[in-house]
Amino acid sequence: MSRIRVGLDVGGTKIDALALAADGAILARTRIPTGWGDHAVVSAVHDAIEALAGEGGFPVAEVASVGIGIPGLIDADAGRVLHAVNLGVTQLDLADAVRVRLPVPVSVENDVKAAALGAGSLRGDAHSMAYLNLGTGVAAGIVIDGVLWRGAHGTAGEVGHLSVDPRGRVCGCGQRGCIETFCGGGAVSKAWGRGGELPLRDVFDLAERGDAFALELREGVAFGAASAVRSLVLSADVETVVIGGGVTALGDRLLDDIVRRLRQEGAESPFIGSLHLDERIELLPAGSPAAALGAALVGAARLPAELV
Amino acid sequence: MSRIRVGLDVGGTKIDALALAADGAILARTRIPTGWGDHAVVSAVHDAIEALAGEGGFPVAEVASVGIGIPGLIDADAGRVLHAVNLGVTQLDLADAVRVRLPVPVSVENDVKAAALGAGSLRGDAHSMAYLNLGTGVAAGIVIDGVLWRGAHGTAGEVGHLSVDPRGRVCGCGQRGCIETFCGGGAVSKAWGRGGELPLRDVFDLAERGDAFALELREGVAFGAASAVRSLVLSADVETVVIGGGVTALGDRLLDDIVRRLRQEGAESPFIGSLHLDERIELLPAGSPAAALGAALVGAARLPAELV
Repeated sequence: MSRIRVGLDVGGTKIDALALAADGAILARTRIPTGWGDHAVVSAVHDAIEALAGEGGFPVAEVASVGIGIPGLIDADAGRVLHAVNLGVTQLDLADAVRVRLPVPVSVENDVKAAALGAGSLRGDAHSMAYLNLGTGVAAGIVIDGVLWRGAHGTAGEVGHLSVDPRGRVCGCGQRGCIETFCGGGAVSKAWGRGGELPLRDVFDLAERGDAFALELREGVAFGAASAVRSLVLSADVETVVIGGGVTALGDRLLDDIVRRLRQEGAESPFIGSLHLDERIELLPAGSPAAALGAALVGAARLPAELV
Repeated sequence: MSRIRVGLDVGGTKIDALALAADGAILARTRIPTGWGDHAVVSAVHDAIEALAGEGGFPVAEVASVGIGIPGLIDADAGRVLHAVNLGVTQLDLADAVRVRLPVPVSVENDVKAAALGAGSLRGDAHSMAYLNLGTGVAAGIVIDGVLWRGAHGTAGEVGHLSVDPRGRVCGCGQRGCIETFCGGGAVSKAWGRGGELPLRDVFDLAERGDAFALELREGVAFGAASAVRSLVLSADVETVVIGGGVTALGDRLLDDIVRRLRQEGAESPFIGSLHLDERIELLPAGSPAAALGAALVGAARLPAELV
């Protein structure tokens, strides 16, 4: 009986793909380039599944379900993607399009929400946690008792667009001083304005050499990330905030900055100090399969119970 | 069989008391002055229950459960109150103290959280809502599917201490620019600094007459309240935010300001506009029994199932 559950994390440049066996073991994992535009995205999804099958030594016919994590606004019930600007997709009935060639249950979820579910599953004790994604943009997914918490209209965890400085830079969303303007990779690169392949790393490197603007931006990254953590704890009161996304390629340099900032805030405010925020954050390890794993779990959730 | 459930909202100046019949009907409601210090608070609780019994024409022996909403840090499992500064209470095992004279289940809950539960019950469709209390301080309670959401450490809904302006006034908690510094009655009165019996009303009145500082403070109240609503929706994504507390005695003048502010923010940001925040808020009606009712529900939750 086909019981292989496939999870795909579709990003702007690559698809991270993973196959889960019936017992939850990871059978195969691979990465392939992603496509641009509706047709290319759908093709790349099929290519990724075939590459996975080759990698894991199983026929595609063994795939029981597909879950796809993808940036943008998602209508999960319809399997529809809206405004995935990094993929050239305006509106795409992705689940239906994939099912034309692979007639199994296909589910679509926002990539950050899928990653939250995967990070929670990897931690094994997702009683209450948030996954904070510091990527081009900033957003979080909240997992309570192992279940993704969507909220009334799917905006739960959208802390990137909380304004924390009325005099801050204008955000892509139109507000000023959003958390994303401080610690989103896109906003920081734009503010930095010097180009380069890894502008965030340049900012951190030059800050270490004393460049005043780089120091200001680097402190802003810590302030923004700390503000996101504070917002998640003071509103949803999650036990743990796992931080991932492209910006976390900075590793301990980033984590140390955020921890220092949270400790400083805790020293200034006994109330904030009592929350021990510095002990409640962790970085998702580099290369973690959280996003693709979460997508596989989202896909499997649509399977009949006897297959799960 | 005794099935009367009593709920008490213990405030800094008065106790609002309410008795519920087995079918949920309100049997009696009354208000008495509150006490200062451990002993006086416990005595006032008993006085309130006796006043209720007199009002409703039932013997105190008919009371099946007591729920108490009270400001401060609450250890709900222990029935303990910590740091209820407006009541002169540092640490009090309130449930145990009340049970000495009235040996029935007694539960203690933070007053804002109890009011959230009551407001949700009164709306009848508490699928996902927050109760935002603009009182001396600012805090919210979140109710999901009719159940109070406490979070990992009981700080869910503590949006009053989210900083929204790094250059703002110093908050009692030690941070700068907390939401509470903008729209908390205590902080605004202190910033206003001119005394008076109803300083918030003075601020609103003088703002209407063009006083520059009053206008700044009044706009700050709208900004703070709007920020709290935004924070609750962008983190927990509750469907509705019900606003109550002493500051709402300003009525439509306050609500109109908050609605105007939310609309202005929605006009500046398509993303914020898409959330229709102005349509998701409402004021708790003056004299609403939400807080005492919520306390009664908290108390009843400890009753054996056959009594509820």
